[in-house]
Amino acid sequence: MSKPITLWGHAGGPNPWKVIIILEELNLKYDHKMLEMSDVKKEPYEKICVNGRVPAIEDPNTGITLWESAAIIEYLIETYGQDKDLTFTSGPEKFLVKQWVFFQASGQGPYYGQAGWFAHYHPEKLPSAIERYREHVKRVLGVLNKALEGKQYLVGEKCTIADLSFIAWDMMLPWMFGEAWAGLDVENKFPNYFAWNKRLLERPAVQAAVKAKAAVSKI
Amino acid sequence: MSKPITLWGHAGGPNPWKVIIILEELNLKYDHKMLEMSDVKKEPYEKICVNGRVPAIEDPNTGITLWESAAIIEYLIETYGQDKDLTFTSGPEKFLVKQWVFFQASGQGPYYGQAGWFAHYHPEKLPSAIERYREHVKRVLGVLNKALEGKQYLVGEKCTIADLSFIAWDMMLPWMFGEAWAGLDVENKFPNYFAWNKRLLERPAVQAAVKAKAAVSKI
Repeated sequence: MSKPITLWGHAGGPNPWKVIIILEELNLKYDHKMLEMSDVKKEPYEKICVNGRVPAIEDPNTGITLWESAAIIEYLIETYGQDKDLTFTSGPEKFLVKQWVFFQASGQGPYYGQAGWFAHYHPEKLPSAIERYREHVKRVLGVLNKALEGKQYLVGEKCTIADLSFIAWDMMLPWMFGEAWAGLDVENKFPNYFAWNKRLLERPAVQAAVKAKAAVSKI
Repeated sequence: MSKPITLWGHAGGPNPWKVIIILEELNLKYDHKMLEMSDVKKEPYEKICVNGRVPAIEDPNTGITLWESAAIIEYLIETYGQDKDLTFTSGPEKFLVKQWVFFQASGQGPYYGQAGWFAHYHPEKLPSAIERYREHVKRVLGVLNKALEGKQYLVGEKCTIADLSFIAWDMMLPWMFGEAWAGLDVENKFPNYFAWNKRLLERPAVQAAVKAKAAVSKI
């Protein structure tokens, strides 16, 4: 690899940071181009991503243009991560990593996103909708807590993209819950989850992403 | 392969049928065990799927237990589908298939699910929430319609799991929209999408799944 990968992202949104964590883990060169939200769902960006969402990447080393954060992560690991041991390439573990990556993409991200939406952006206050998605968040924390019983990581005995994929949305939990956050008492109610999240946050690559986000976004 | 795969599913929910379409495409033997919704989020099923959702599979031929519909589909294709040509295994197309599979799992399914929830199950009527998710559905149809301009399938010149993954949720659109469905005028407003969906529905494997679902569910 010689030329930096272009990452199309946004200061506050979680999914570009999900990719940045992997770019940092793989020690890859990249150029993070942060769009305004008002520019995401129109040309010229829609020529890069017909879905009008961030992130997307353009990799001049292979010529690929790709969107969907989890697909980008799989691309980066397969193209540049063979020596980095952040996944499994055979056995049941190969598919268990996929299982958790899809659970993050379909069962964590969208529901956490709705929790944030109804708490902060919906044009009217709908307490039963806010409650619905906060309960979903708690359900997800409960599933992770149960899956992590007696384990350090979700699959096998090592940190993989299955674990790392959850961080970017988990960073936004205090914003999502607002004043209700302290009452959730994650440390005591979901102790396996809490210890795992702390373990992941201590990784230098994750810290690099956390610091880079804090420099440009308050949420 | 000699022994049938056990598929844990549900009569009405779309995601088990998403897997059944692929089982039918690959001509695999399977035993569809349909749970009641009240049994999904508790033991003994939670021992199979800690997430308390369907589908999950148990494959006695390899010993794997796996959940998340898209992860199951990737497992089936890699394990049993090498001669069936329903994906790409190299080049940019390999990752473009993943891109659309993740878009379906994270950008179609969860939003369609919320459209159904607020239309049919939420304890109070919230018109602005119903409207929000119906607009999301239209946005997804628009993205697919634009991506399919001048094309028969989403990736390359052949039908892949990227295309087939969308059908099970698309089958539920009339239920999601109720009386508003006819007014959506999908055939004229999203003609590329409409022709593609029709093309997919004509496949014998898809028809087998459609008929099997109609025999056990009204939605």
